[in-house]
Amino acid sequence: MTEKINLAEKFASFDELWVPKVVAELNGQYLKAAKFQGEYVWHSHANEDELFLVTKGSMRIRLRDGVVELQEGEFFVVPRGVEHKPEADEVVECLLFEPAETRNTGDVDHAYTIEARDLERI
Amino acid sequence: MTEKINLAEKFASFDELWVPKVVAELNGQYLKAAKFQGEYVWHSHANEDELFLVTKGSMRIRLRDGVVELQEGEFFVVPRGVEHKPEADEVVECLLFEPAETRNTGDVDHAYTIEARDLERI
Repeated sequence: MTEKINLAEKFASFDELWVPKVVAELNGQYLKAAKFQGEYVWHSHANEDELFLVTKGSMRIRLRDGVVELQEGEFFVVPRGVEHKPEADEVVECLLFEPAETRNTGDVDHAYTIEARDLERI
Repeated sequence: MTEKINLAEKFASFDELWVPKVVAELNGQYLKAAKFQGEYVWHSHANEDELFLVTKGSMRIRLRDGVVELQEGEFFVVPRGVEHKPEADEVVECLLFEPAETRNTGDVDHAYTIEARDLERI
């Protein structure tokens, strides 16, 4: 009941890139910790808005009509249905907030795809 | 479409204590920025889990069976139905994540009460 979560400890517990880890579940939503480096795949989520909050480092979210540059302490919400492609030059740590059923590569099947039911809880 | 949010700028834009401001809406949930100092009122939310993530400073969340001490970079989810009482010795900045319809003082009417529909968006 009184278990708090320390984000630095959670981020220190894994090194995998592009493999979000569930750190909390509430109201049918997941809060996920993720590390990114390199380029992800273009995709969209038909029914889920997706929040990216950078907690360490920086990243870009490419959209078909622009690019969002995120530094530590900045976030962006990708609206449902909007194609996006996350990128990071160096390893970035970020939080994702989205419905629990969100598929990481959305409408695309890719080597990065992990079904929501298979996400690791840390 | 490409508007990102800088949390430091949002927190710098208001000084009110115990008056959460909506900084994002997604999937029927609100992400809120709040500043707390002093003692809040005991309350619970019958149908909403509530996430508190400290981004600057420290705070306590008292529960009937214990207390959660949160430092910067730590979060806690108060499960629906669980009585809690936030407190902070110094001004703390935190993010709240919860369903958009969540009433800030839950089942209690209090001077701090703000109906969800009246929350300011910043």
